[in-house]
Amino acid sequence: MKLTIERAALLKSLGHVQSVVERRNTIPILSNVLIEAGSGAAKLTATDMDLTIVEEVGCQVAEAGATTAPAHTLYDIVRKLPDGAQVELDVQGDQGQMSLKSGRSTFQLATLPKEDFPATQANDLPQAFSLQGKELRELIDRTRFAISTEETRYYLNGIYVHATSGEEGSAKQLRGVATDGHRLARFEMPVPDGADGMPGVIVPRKTVNELRKLIDETDGGIEVALSDTKIRFTFDSTVLTSKLIDGTFPDYERVIPSGNDKMMEVDRKAFASAVDRVSTISTEKSRAVKLSLADNTLTLSATSPENGSATEELEISYQGDNIEIGFNSRYLLDIAERLGGDGAQFSLSDSASPTIVQDAGDTSALYVLMPMRV
Amino acid sequence: MKLTIERAALLKSLGHVQSVVERRNTIPILSNVLIEAGSGAAKLTATDMDLTIVEEVGCQVAEAGATTAPAHTLYDIVRKLPDGAQVELDVQGDQGQMSLKSGRSTFQLATLPKEDFPATQANDLPQAFSLQGKELRELIDRTRFAISTEETRYYLNGIYVHATSGEEGSAKQLRGVATDGHRLARFEMPVPDGADGMPGVIVPRKTVNELRKLIDETDGGIEVALSDTKIRFTFDSTVLTSKLIDGTFPDYERVIPSGNDKMMEVDRKAFASAVDRVSTISTEKSRAVKLSLADNTLTLSATSPENGSATEELEISYQGDNIEIGFNSRYLLDIAERLGGDGAQFSLSDSASPTIVQDAGDTSALYVLMPMRV
Repeated sequence: MKLTIERAALLKSLGHVQSVVERRNTIPILSNVLIEAGSGAAKLTATDMDLTIVEEVGCQVAEAGATTAPAHTLYDIVRKLPDGAQVELDVQGDQGQMSLKSGRSTFQLATLPKEDFPATQANDLPQAFSLQGKELRELIDRTRFAISTEETRYYLNGIYVHATSGEEGSAKQLRGVATDGHRLARFEMPVPDGADGMPGVIVPRKTVNELRKLIDETDGGIEVALSDTKIRFTFDSTVLTSKLIDGTFPDYERVIPSGNDKMMEVDRKAFASAVDRVSTISTEKSRAVKLSLADNTLTLSATSPENGSATEELEISYQGDNIEIGFNSRYLLDIAERLGGDGAQFSLSDSASPTIVQDAGDTSALYVLMPMRV
Repeated sequence: MKLTIERAALLKSLGHVQSVVERRNTIPILSNVLIEAGSGAAKLTATDMDLTIVEEVGCQVAEAGATTAPAHTLYDIVRKLPDGAQVELDVQGDQGQMSLKSGRSTFQLATLPKEDFPATQANDLPQAFSLQGKELRELIDRTRFAISTEETRYYLNGIYVHATSGEEGSAKQLRGVATDGHRLARFEMPVPDGADGMPGVIVPRKTVNELRKLIDETDGGIEVALSDTKIRFTFDSTVLTSKLIDGTFPDYERVIPSGNDKMMEVDRKAFASAVDRVSTISTEKSRAVKLSLADNTLTLSATSPENGSATEELEISYQGDNIEIGFNSRYLLDIAERLGGDGAQFSLSDSASPTIVQDAGDTSALYVLMPMRV
């Protein structure tokens, strides 16, 4: 194998694939990137056995062939080469080493045989549809923060994506849902052609995070294909294939209260700033803040035995009965940050029941927040 | 005590003083800032018993008085207040609490009696001189990185500052020296008026770091006063007083070789980039790179059993005998970063002896680097 490639193009592609490679691997080949040089292009592949990324990058191939080399080391070297450099990769004979030459620098990197690299099966993925990058980005950004990090509840360690059946004449929706048991995030958009009747799947956190990084670099559409066990995202020159979480996502609809009749609307940014200030006093452990709603006035307060107390008043739109309810300030801030508009609308029932938060005038994102005793 | 102050002014001053306060304190009062309101100004004081900062900030004082309040909490609150806000601090009666009011926010903070705050003695500091901010900044920036972090060698945990005696007709110099046993950094400048004959003192790392932060915010001169045990730095509205390290700095002059006769000059930035690239291959533990000098060519190389090998050639000015010498790449990069000019000059003896590095054409900073076996 022998090829010459521009440093910038190689760096971009290696940046994508090395991100999938774990820092510590008990299986040595998983630290490596598979490099396959064909006609006018090289294919770079990396995998952690659950998530596989394949990226194609244009180059001059003097001699077709393939090898595997340490992904992070290769990425670090290319990153440190000067802007505008040309990089020559060369494997001769028994493939014990790959040489990398650029300017007056020469590196010899230990390789492993390409035959040892785990095969990525071209599974049958019957369901296929396409999304715009910005649609997928919004689905992720509006829900990702609520993914659980508790490994014992592995079925909550991802975003649950499914299509609604459009009961009672409502339009069918594609939904992303994430929850950690304390808060729930749901985002929905009109179901794309081809996604109708798709199975409900749980996309793992790492896949969501890698996907999110790739979206930032794409302008065009993203092809999605999936089965019960796998999902594939196809970009211009990058293909991300991931196992799905093999578990049952809870019946989240039951968590969303339907009878909350106390409606409060507040300026989103003013609310976030006030919560942030008042929570300075909360203990690190509880982070609790109390919301006291009375006629068009919201009083935020926090107390702690060590630090003292804090209160702040905000003008709101509220005409219901007086109510006091406590929340984890971190969760309130998370939600306030993910709402897109100027106003946040709270639908409350009582101080012991879950509260719904949405953008005022946009129902595409819905958040459910469990109260805390304060 | 009752005062009103602009949020920006209070934030700046609290930013300085809270930085001295340790995050964890076994003595509760050391978590607090002493606030003393006099006529038209408040004095803020914080200490960790070794290092004390006093800052004066203009404000409207409705009622003189003093209290102490948690420094980090107070800083966090003020930081989160909106730009342009006015802050009212108020302590009434038995001083159990201080109220902070701004806009529609109210905080009650736990206080401790001002009498419990450690007294900062106005010691007799006989030696006094002044320096420009940029002079002191350079002395710190050129040497600080070499301060030892080994707590057992406490006498190396700071910058040794002293005045030379100007033997053999050479001009007297003010010097800063730091070493960790692997490398030594020395910076010198003409001795300022009043520093002549000053005792050699070791300024602790934390003091150096706090000082460095304050320098960035000053345009003017800095008054320095010291004795055998204490040093004081006086800025416009800030006074930093520190204990000195009670120990003997080693006779560093003996470490600086005088007979190194192999002179090599290299472009500083090209050298740093090449060392950075080649060291990608070095193991995390040794970080070793080898320098091979032959007629006007420097070859940098590194090998590691796991990763492979790397070599890079650089054009240099060198006419001595061929020599091979190994260094810790991290130390080479540290020095290359602290040199100010375009060219770096190495004075070598042999592969087992310390090497001197200086700016080509500027001898104010001098670095000694111990070689590694490679």
